[in-house]
Amino acid sequence: MSGPARTDAGVTSAPVTGEDEVRRLLREDLRGGTAYGAPQLEVAHALNTNENAYPVPDEVAEAITTAVAAETRGLNRYPDREFTALREALAAYLTHASGVTITPEQTWAGNGSNEVLLHLVQAFGGPGRTALGFTPSYSMHPIITRTADTTWIDGLRGRESAGEGDAGARFDLPVEATAAQAREHDPSLVFLCSPNNPTGTALDLDVVRAVYDAAQNAIVVVDEAYAEFARPGTPSALTLLEGRPRLVVTRTLSKAFALAGGRLGYLAADPALVDALRLVRMPYHLSSVTQAVATTVLGHADVMLGTVEAIKTQRDRIVDELPALGYESVPSDANFVLFGGIEDAPALWRVLLEEGVLVRDVGLPGYLRVTAGTPAEVDAFLAALARHPGTASIEEEQA
Amino acid sequence: MSGPARTDAGVTSAPVTGEDEVRRLLREDLRGGTAYGAPQLEVAHALNTNENAYPVPDEVAEAITTAVAAETRGLNRYPDREFTALREALAAYLTHASGVTITPEQTWAGNGSNEVLLHLVQAFGGPGRTALGFTPSYSMHPIITRTADTTWIDGLRGRESAGEGDAGARFDLPVEATAAQAREHDPSLVFLCSPNNPTGTALDLDVVRAVYDAAQNAIVVVDEAYAEFARPGTPSALTLLEGRPRLVVTRTLSKAFALAGGRLGYLAADPALVDALRLVRMPYHLSSVTQAVATTVLGHADVMLGTVEAIKTQRDRIVDELPALGYESVPSDANFVLFGGIEDAPALWRVLLEEGVLVRDVGLPGYLRVTAGTPAEVDAFLAALARHPGTASIEEEQA
Repeated sequence: MSGPARTDAGVTSAPVTGEDEVRRLLREDLRGGTAYGAPQLEVAHALNTNENAYPVPDEVAEAITTAVAAETRGLNRYPDREFTALREALAAYLTHASGVTITPEQTWAGNGSNEVLLHLVQAFGGPGRTALGFTPSYSMHPIITRTADTTWIDGLRGRESAGEGDAGARFDLPVEATAAQAREHDPSLVFLCSPNNPTGTALDLDVVRAVYDAAQNAIVVVDEAYAEFARPGTPSALTLLEGRPRLVVTRTLSKAFALAGGRLGYLAADPALVDALRLVRMPYHLSSVTQAVATTVLGHADVMLGTVEAIKTQRDRIVDELPALGYESVPSDANFVLFGGIEDAPALWRVLLEEGVLVRDVGLPGYLRVTAGTPAEVDAFLAALARHPGTASIEEEQA
Repeated sequence: MSGPARTDAGVTSAPVTGEDEVRRLLREDLRGGTAYGAPQLEVAHALNTNENAYPVPDEVAEAITTAVAAETRGLNRYPDREFTALREALAAYLTHASGVTITPEQTWAGNGSNEVLLHLVQAFGGPGRTALGFTPSYSMHPIITRTADTTWIDGLRGRESAGEGDAGARFDLPVEATAAQAREHDPSLVFLCSPNNPTGTALDLDVVRAVYDAAQNAIVVVDEAYAEFARPGTPSALTLLEGRPRLVVTRTLSKAFALAGGRLGYLAADPALVDALRLVRMPYHLSSVTQAVATTVLGHADVMLGTVEAIKTQRDRIVDELPALGYESVPSDANFVLFGGIEDAPALWRVLLEEGVLVRDVGLPGYLRVTAGTPAEVDAFLAALARHPGTASIEEEQA
């Protein structure tokens, strides 16, 4: 029935509304849900979404404009469905960054790494299949998994999984305990995240090796969105690809490459695995403009990555200075820091917002996450915290 | 097992390859499948993907470049997740084009209309649910449906459904027979396509009304990708949105707006239905650049649509001239023409390709589809066909 209907009593009943129909017809598992997304608030210091704090350098901004200008008249034609030039640029960058040869046929890209991850679950997951991840981790992993009608299995980290350990080890992934879960659940996909979001620490490659060997029927995804910020000597899972045809390393241009607004996520894997993703991607999913922008940015990798050292310096500064303010720092290989020693995280989140500093409440009781921004942004963050000390025992700063 | 393994006889067996693992681990229903996509061939006259034959006009190309230049430095920040300015531009254009008021809250967009359609199936379809469409129609409808783990039901057209009629009516959707199928199958989604691809003809709105009333539990999607090319007096299903909270009209900037390379599809529907799509879209799915490009193009709608009349003239010319060459024309409201009277469609496709004219074999025995291009492109197409007459009884051209 649509439109007003008359009842026996002659009273006009209300028409069926869109809300009524959505409530009735939406998939059962989506009903009552809320959309993913950090608040997009106007605030002096936005340190909540791990963006690169620095704008795209003028030199690169001009190159992007030039590259897009060359595409505009021809936009009446569909893009190169195989994004050939972009894949060549991705392969060249990964080869340079990792020291192992990555070919264009090993690369794949999407509108943000979320789309790349979705392609993986669409191809290798599906109804009746499972994906295993280890919470807390990137909160889109379970959402993407469920979007592709795959059952999410919430694995255990740290002392929960090992049955021991102190609070500092609570977010670790011990090799044996993690591999045992992979073996036990026998999932179709495993999500690892290194450096892990929101905790910040990179994974020992022994964990990746052990999980790969334990999950014999799984595509093992190592999400390396923040890899470029890792502390010296942290190896990439790219170095494990050779001989592991089920291993996938995902990355993004949103963080170190300062291209969050350009939406380009990508991955490296065996060419046959990459080829299978063509079966699930929407045709022409990457616009000619997106391809041109991303290819240009990759062509200026040295310039774009110039901000990374400055961000790492601020990241280390946050980790070092928080203990003196009564907060506990979790060691970080990313452009953000998870910090604890908070009695009421939602309350501190509001206090900081009132001070003009927007951080992220990642839903971990007693913790908040802050992006390492510019020196001025980190000044503002630390000054605000200094006015609201934490509950951890305050360590004296070293002279 | 990964890597080479030694057998008892001491012979090293072949390592497990990516092909092996994909064959073993890919979803069962994707195995042996091939990826969607028309051949992207270098050819003199590409009349196979219904692109707008005309490049983006200089005036608009320059405005696009200027708009993108304004975004480049800020690409380190995530895009506006709600694409506010773009939705305002979409609403303004649809209101202008249809004569009925469409608000920004009624609009939604994605990277091509494929993504918008995927969002609809992800939100309202899913395992155990069905989507009904009427083949031949846009071949992505069943692919998108299955990608979202929804069962596709292939409805019947024309004389098959009505049990009568001549060959000319074979692609029609008779009101009663179509509504009866919608009632019988009781699907979660119905796909209609008007003008229909690949047949070209627009749908009488009586069919939309009847299907909407018959499919009481369905989201009814009218795919109007080619609406701007319709013959005079063809109404849009946008005029039916009021009071029909389950009705959706999808459109694209790829065709009349000459923006296939920019990838922007969109829809109009009840605000509550649109709101539900936030639950399934990947966050920040539309880049800042895509938003800027599409908003700019919509701001130049009059200029962009200036090519439409020229294309319609060529479309009508193809329909009019084919009978004299021994080919049967299907009436068209789109920027393409389906033509029959072909003994062997794959053979004629190859012959035309050898003549430098790339058309589309849409898999309908005895038919091919050609895009209405520039006058020179249509000259080439008709001249090639004149050298290879069709099998339909040749009608004499009027003096």
